[in-house]
Amino acid sequence: MNYRMIAYLLGYVLLLIGAFLLLPVIVALIYGEGDLLSLLLTAVICAALGGMMMLLKPKRDRTMHARDGFVMVSLSWIFISLLGALPFWLNGAIPSYLDAVFETVSGFTTTGASILTHVEAMPHGLLFWRSFTHWLGGMGVLVFMLAVVPLSGESIYLLKAESPGPSVSKMVPKMRTTAKILYGIYFAMTLLQIFAYQLGDLCGWGDISLFDSVCLAFGSAGTGGFSVRSTGLAEYSSYVQTVTTVGMIMFGVNFSVYFFLICRKFRLVRQNTELKYYLAIILGAVALITANLMLTGGYFTDVRNAVHHVSFSVGSIITTTGYGTVDFSTWPELSRAVLVLLMICGACAGSTGGGLKVSRVVILVKTARSELQHLLHPHSVEVMKMDGKRVDRDVIRGTSAYLIFYILIAVVSIVLVSLDNFGTETSVTSVLATLNNIGPGTSIIIGPFGGYSGFSALSKVVMILDMLFGRLELFPMLILFRPSTWRKH
Amino acid sequence: MNYRMIAYLLGYVLLLIGAFLLLPVIVALIYGEGDLLSLLLTAVICAALGGMMMLLKPKRDRTMHARDGFVMVSLSWIFISLLGALPFWLNGAIPSYLDAVFETVSGFTTTGASILTHVEAMPHGLLFWRSFTHWLGGMGVLVFMLAVVPLSGESIYLLKAESPGPSVSKMVPKMRTTAKILYGIYFAMTLLQIFAYQLGDLCGWGDISLFDSVCLAFGSAGTGGFSVRSTGLAEYSSYVQTVTTVGMIMFGVNFSVYFFLICRKFRLVRQNTELKYYLAIILGAVALITANLMLTGGYFTDVRNAVHHVSFSVGSIITTTGYGTVDFSTWPELSRAVLVLLMICGACAGSTGGGLKVSRVVILVKTARSELQHLLHPHSVEVMKMDGKRVDRDVIRGTSAYLIFYILIAVVSIVLVSLDNFGTETSVTSVLATLNNIGPGTSIIIGPFGGYSGFSALSKVVMILDMLFGRLELFPMLILFRPSTWRKH
Repeated sequence: MNYRMIAYLLGYVLLLIGAFLLLPVIVALIYGEGDLLSLLLTAVICAALGGMMMLLKPKRDRTMHARDGFVMVSLSWIFISLLGALPFWLNGAIPSYLDAVFETVSGFTTTGASILTHVEAMPHGLLFWRSFTHWLGGMGVLVFMLAVVPLSGESIYLLKAESPGPSVSKMVPKMRTTAKILYGIYFAMTLLQIFAYQLGDLCGWGDISLFDSVCLAFGSAGTGGFSVRSTGLAEYSSYVQTVTTVGMIMFGVNFSVYFFLICRKFRLVRQNTELKYYLAIILGAVALITANLMLTGGYFTDVRNAVHHVSFSVGSIITTTGYGTVDFSTWPELSRAVLVLLMICGACAGSTGGGLKVSRVVILVKTARSELQHLLHPHSVEVMKMDGKRVDRDVIRGTSAYLIFYILIAVVSIVLVSLDNFGTETSVTSVLATLNNIGPGTSIIIGPFGGYSGFSALSKVVMILDMLFGRLELFPMLILFRPSTWRKH
Repeated sequence: MNYRMIAYLLGYVLLLIGAFLLLPVIVALIYGEGDLLSLLLTAVICAALGGMMMLLKPKRDRTMHARDGFVMVSLSWIFISLLGALPFWLNGAIPSYLDAVFETVSGFTTTGASILTHVEAMPHGLLFWRSFTHWLGGMGVLVFMLAVVPLSGESIYLLKAESPGPSVSKMVPKMRTTAKILYGIYFAMTLLQIFAYQLGDLCGWGDISLFDSVCLAFGSAGTGGFSVRSTGLAEYSSYVQTVTTVGMIMFGVNFSVYFFLICRKFRLVRQNTELKYYLAIILGAVALITANLMLTGGYFTDVRNAVHHVSFSVGSIITTTGYGTVDFSTWPELSRAVLVLLMICGACAGSTGGGLKVSRVVILVKTARSELQHLLHPHSVEVMKMDGKRVDRDVIRGTSAYLIFYILIAVVSIVLVSLDNFGTETSVTSVLATLNNIGPGTSIIIGPFGGYSGFSALSKVVMILDMLFGRLELFPMLILFRPSTWRKH
């Protein structure tokens, strides 16, 4: 293990977090609500610690192997979570440090699960930092670092370890350029959403302050789900809700699709297998749940209104954002079952969304189907295709392994959380909601407007780990915790 | 498709069922409770129909391909279920034919899920038939046919399709001899259990009639779970319960282990990977649940008593029998979560138990672990071993596909059953209990003493299919229902 190189890069990440903390510092200066000191102090701590670690920069051996890359990514996410939690705790807005870490991990991993019961009581600087963690975590802190720091060729491991999806497609040959393009699209789309909110405010389609616009846009862009109100998005106008629906669904699309659009490579967009399934699943789920709600009765009287709220909920859950306009925990069982499935399915690979990812689900179903064929015709060789190209055997094997680890981690977590005795549905959905980086579960206790504050410390630790496992797509964290990683070779 | 050959073999199976029905006919003659006619009539129908179908015996082309074998197995299980349900319906003991089919499928697939609320009201002949379906279905009707009918070499497909587990090990080179050995061991062990019950009755360790002994032994041997009392095994003495515990766990072991014991090949028994895991899981689960119950308080005051009932429940659930001595649906959440996991895990391959099978779980975990290794060292080649031998690549791929199909079928079933709005826990556990051939779920509605009569017709059809999917290990039924199976090539 190249410890010096890992420490050096970790230091760089902390330095960046220190710099990013200056944004909420500015917000705290504007509002003057007593959160300035805690934010500034944390920025200084990050910068100092980061600077010291950067002194460890190795003089000769700068090579990084796959293992080093995975360990570095896991460690940096743990470090930024532990340090990013400081402002909430130092300020006293969240009295328990464990709760503060839970909230910060939930932010960076774009989960959006909150232990807060009264969001409005928090100072604006801290609220801004809370939503900003979504934005940073959505595209990834290390991807940002790759965009600004010139690193050697091995940096592909970092991108691989932090980017969602079964395979990483470099858009352009140079890693640094790819990272820059990703952040460029991300930044522009976020600005567009803020602009859409403000346009509505100007035209009288629904009041929303600039602060709220920025925070909600951060939450949608990172598909996080932290709101600035305890009632989620229920109190905003239907224009604001519609903008958010469109925003969430757009941020759940693989960013390479937008890159192809910019480059006018429309053929590649049309060929994108995952995009077709993603949109088909959304449309199918909206139709099914709307029908279920209208036929059951007692939920919506007007179909248009039903479609509006169901689209929002489906978009919110499949992209693993977790915003809510209505309390879907009271919906009939079929609708809730569909929402849980969307939770697990998740958004597209290469997006900011969580979950298994649509492409993984597609690969798994195709794997199973081709195995059935193989059973009947043992000598036939079938080629699996995605986006018109042959899928690599390693990707297929890796996807099966991903599913198995996913199940194992979920199972162990559910067993541990069930010690709280909150009921099976709560245990299962809270684990799925954190592992898939959704936030709100579909149970009564942790519906879209419920909090996670009631869980025991053990359950909170389990869920913190689940959020990190989910955001980093299992393997980096598995490698970090595997004893043989730390054995001398 | 070789339709004539399939029809011929199907006819043979029906003829066998007609012959087997003579046993409950004798019981009905002894007790004289008015169920004689319905049983006799069904036997005649089976024999007549079977005889007619056997006339289709092909003169020349007797070859069977894999597809023919899978289709034949699925069809024969559907046929014997539809015909085996007749006695219950004709007699009027189960007024609805759908319910009668549910009960019979539950019997043959060794599920043990019952729509009866008052078992004691049923005549003894029908009760015997109900338990006898467990015994026949446990080892398999087609395996029996293989033992008595001389068939050509392609009969391996039939054994493959009906025998549980990721790979079929022929104990001896000749298929027919293997089938004979399997049924020989099965018969002897069932007799042993009946003898143990009767010994206890003689020595005054607990009253149990010969009829009850036979039925309970059938239920344990097939790991089915139908009892002859509404209260399961709660009313029997603790000696009877202990005999049943040991019996269930023994029938959950791969039968080749017993064959090796008979042949004095002790090295092969010691090398059996699955057996070690199976016993370790049972011991671990008993320890965990006992600790959970004793620490929670309010369940057992005496550790010995707790271990007695927990061992029974764990043995009953992991072997997918489903007998109950206590109502574990009231146990704390951790214990119930462990039971659900045991349900899914299931017993050993090559036993009469259901579930995923311990060896599949072991292969899946090993697959995932080797993939993690592959991620770090892409050029390393790891060999997976079971029982000291290398696992075939096809088995590994097939096991991953099995897991994916298993999840897909469970998901679709849960969504359909959730239309009944009985609560998520009930929908999930009832689907898992039928798909894994357990019987009782762990929910409040369908605890070990609850029935399945309350579900809608749609849910019952879904569960009937789930039971067949589970017993035949997915692939035969998938191939039967795949449209391309029926397309002309």
